[in-house]
Amino acid sequence: MKTVFETAQTLLSWDYILVVSHASPDGDTLGAATALIRGLRSLGKKADFACADDIDKKYRYLFDGIDNINFIPERVVTVDVADSNLLGSLDGKYEIDFAIDHHALRVSGAGSCWVDAKAAATCQMIYKLLLEMKVKITKEIANCLYTGISTDTGCFKYSNATSDSYRVAAQLIDAGARSGHINRIMFDTKTRACIEVERRVFASMEFLFDDKIVCATIPRALLLETGAKESDLDGIPSMVRGIEGVFVGITLKEKEDGIWKASVRAINPVNAAEICRELGGGGHKGAGGCTLGTDLQAGKKKLIDACEKALS
Amino acid sequence: MKTVFETAQTLLSWDYILVVSHASPDGDTLGAATALIRGLRSLGKKADFACADDIDKKYRYLFDGIDNINFIPERVVTVDVADSNLLGSLDGKYEIDFAIDHHALRVSGAGSCWVDAKAAATCQMIYKLLLEMKVKITKEIANCLYTGISTDTGCFKYSNATSDSYRVAAQLIDAGARSGHINRIMFDTKTRACIEVERRVFASMEFLFDDKIVCATIPRALLLETGAKESDLDGIPSMVRGIEGVFVGITLKEKEDGIWKASVRAINPVNAAEICRELGGGGHKGAGGCTLGTDLQAGKKKLIDACEKALS
Repeated sequence: MKTVFETAQTLLSWDYILVVSHASPDGDTLGAATALIRGLRSLGKKADFACADDIDKKYRYLFDGIDNINFIPERVVTVDVADSNLLGSLDGKYEIDFAIDHHALRVSGAGSCWVDAKAAATCQMIYKLLLEMKVKITKEIANCLYTGISTDTGCFKYSNATSDSYRVAAQLIDAGARSGHINRIMFDTKTRACIEVERRVFASMEFLFDDKIVCATIPRALLLETGAKESDLDGIPSMVRGIEGVFVGITLKEKEDGIWKASVRAINPVNAAEICRELGGGGHKGAGGCTLGTDLQAGKKKLIDACEKALS
Repeated sequence: MKTVFETAQTLLSWDYILVVSHASPDGDTLGAATALIRGLRSLGKKADFACADDIDKKYRYLFDGIDNINFIPERVVTVDVADSNLLGSLDGKYEIDFAIDHHALRVSGAGSCWVDAKAAATCQMIYKLLLEMKVKITKEIANCLYTGISTDTGCFKYSNATSDSYRVAAQLIDAGARSGHINRIMFDTKTRACIEVERRVFASMEFLFDDKIVCATIPRALLLETGAKESDLDGIPSMVRGIEGVFVGITLKEKEDGIWKASVRAINPVNAAEICRELGGGGHKGAGGCTLGTDLQAGKKKLIDACEKALS
């Protein structure tokens, strides 16, 4: 495991660098990659980007001014990739020379790595790395890094946003990051399909056990009918838990193969992981998950029994 | 207009102080008042709280440990009260000795005032004032101040959150503010009535002018049917504007007297204030408002004509 100083020294010694994001890329992996590429290029190095999947159009601004260039990469650096299987179809295509990540998980197969599990986002680490490399933080770099910190902390809403996250964000805003504009794109824009699917899920929600348990069910057909994508469902579990008076929010989702999965969110003192363990799943206190199989009604009954037991 | 230093000197010279919040109190006015009262009490002064309206129960934690005390106030300080009519039923009851506020509006009737229009929240100012008064920032004070900064910036989402807001928040987290917990209460908890009213409003939304205009209509009956309060409607205008591809989001709301009011949100380059001015209203570029009278259909047609003109 390297320090930020050693990471900077290593990257400074390289010249032809490919920066790789994880598959199904989010704001943090893309913000980190684009900021690092901008920084490396500003030092006169050749650097470019790779990712297994397409970039959602809301992230396109991160790439403004980063044109593809022609060169043969000598070194490959991953950002925000906790495990090589998260590279998707790129897994195995490259030898990873260096992995930079804020997940306290294994980073398998990388030559070297710098991991800071206390950082809320990989972008928070890249900020420190660029300073260490004496890169000037331009407003474009600031926009990229702010995007990653904001998206990985739910716009500074969750407890993973440490005082350090706020301090780095302050410096990025001083460097020109358009925080309000970025947050509007990331948090205040929904597709019609997303609104429609949320509307239908809420209309069919069940309130159980004196309204302390709420259960939302998302059959596969709902995605087809509304045109919503998997990612349009991301907000539903926390919305279900967020209903006043609810202690356990359950979201049941039918996967492509007809298997139902449950996502369970719980409010203190109820423990979501304990509930899910009764059905062979796991998680942590606030959020857990388990698989119910193909028989929705039977699986749901078992899960709700476990919730009622936890609430009693 | 006083400086923070002069404000501190003034408050330090007083002993029996009533701190007053504005009517329909929000997180900023309540966070500022409770933090200031805690700070003044820690310096051995008598300080207590007044507000025209009841405090919503989600804000009760701000008052933990602040018991009412018996004393005759010699001085009255308002926090986050831009105009004396915002005192509600308390307007005229007290002589205001000092007004502390971040609104660049008139603070009428106050003996002295300290206004910092650059501060995102009054709580950001109270933090500096307490430091100036050499008050120790306890975790209780930190919770109160964080609440105000977070609620007034939409959880750091809007551009009014400056780098200074983020820096103060970082210091408050270091002092023990439970940011994640506070934000869950403030931003991730909705009543069932609120969800129900949002669901119905979304179900009846109209998409016009090639889906560039969206119009949501909220008749009075909807509040009665769902049991929703006025404040449950607060999120609707920005949700309407937040639909992908929408340039103008219109929310039409029937007031108690049968008069319809329009709230218009626009995305650059469309100007909401210009649209509303055509109907005798006003506002700023992103958000405007106007009154439509009691004839919904006629008023709505005029407003949509003005929107289509702006979009053409």
